[in-house]
Amino acid sequence: MSNARLEQQMAFIIEMEKLKIVYRQNGVLGGARHENTAEHSWHVTLMALLLQEHALDQNLDIVKVIKMLMVHDIVEIDAGDTWAYDAAGYQDKAAKEDAAAQRIFGLLPSDQCEALITVWREFEVGETPEARFAASLDSMSPVVNFYATDGVEGDTGRLKTSQVYAKKRFIGETAPALWHYTQDVIRKSGEKGLYLEDIEA
Amino acid sequence: MSNARLEQQMAFIIEMEKLKIVYRQNGVLGGARHENTAEHSWHVTLMALLLQEHALDQNLDIVKVIKMLMVHDIVEIDAGDTWAYDAAGYQDKAAKEDAAAQRIFGLLPSDQCEALITVWREFEVGETPEARFAASLDSMSPVVNFYATDGVEGDTGRLKTSQVYAKKRFIGETAPALWHYTQDVIRKSGEKGLYLEDIEA
Repeated sequence: MSNARLEQQMAFIIEMEKLKIVYRQNGVLGGARHENTAEHSWHVTLMALLLQEHALDQNLDIVKVIKMLMVHDIVEIDAGDTWAYDAAGYQDKAAKEDAAAQRIFGLLPSDQCEALITVWREFEVGETPEARFAASLDSMSPVVNFYATDGVEGDTGRLKTSQVYAKKRFIGETAPALWHYTQDVIRKSGEKGLYLEDIEA
Repeated sequence: MSNARLEQQMAFIIEMEKLKIVYRQNGVLGGARHENTAEHSWHVTLMALLLQEHALDQNLDIVKVIKMLMVHDIVEIDAGDTWAYDAAGYQDKAAKEDAAAQRIFGLLPSDQCEALITVWREFEVGETPEARFAASLDSMSPVVNFYATDGVEGDTGRLKTSQVYAKKRFIGETAPALWHYTQDVIRKSGEKGLYLEDIEA
């Protein structure tokens, strides 16, 4: 294989350094800093490896799920992280992320670029069993992280429990056991004061 | 499936928060902090997904390589990160890491615990094609990161170029193209002043 091909692959891999300095709303243990998107991607991919048995669809292509979760957020290098509850931020999210995908995956050799853009789009569209299971894990992960870390100082108590239930309820459609677990974590987080208490939705 | 099983899986997943606050010698872009082991694990797993074609052995079980790289360093939660050039730190590294593996993987249901300990041991022993390719990527990654980030302030110029060549040369046995690339990065890093210049090994 040509050296030019490896140079393209390594240009993409070096570009990925930037994902380690894209910070999310969530925090790390001890609260010293926000969680970054690279470590989040690792964590949610590990969840896929371990929790596959809880998907309603037992014919999932788990390698596709892994690929989706490994690259699902790399567009944030250009587009930034949009908080799931930021309605204004979501208005131009798709267009910004599409341009980012073209540029960033475009660093790769064309076959690998096309393969990963296809997987990334499938995740974004969210209609296949793999995309829905991946999205469920991606949505469950920050709830569990928030409960485990207590968030970053100043970031707690901004959401109502009912908002979180509403945003996460779709998990139940692909993985009822994971939704049951997530509901319990939301309830306990509310009791801890991490969410604004309101009538349980 | 029982709720007790999911509780065990989630106890392990929550434990993994700790890997985000295990810091390595390497840095992130901008040098504001050290790289942590969780984001490193993501980066090197992504390398496996993209660079498989450069392995001499074209019959690699890439899913096994992915599992190895996803969990290869989780023992650092208990045992800490041992710098590859720290001879003293390596003296009791194996015993500490073995105890850590028993405790941490032991959080999982027994079938998943056994499966992941088996994969982790195979990586540590380093004799199978999958373990050797995974180790090559794991060894290449900090060299590329160091060149791309210029390291964390105060951490540069402590190694001789020849020490780095000696430590990384095994990459050539599993992936000659990657070793060729890595040698070039080591040379350019030396020219940048990231290593103490000496006679090229």
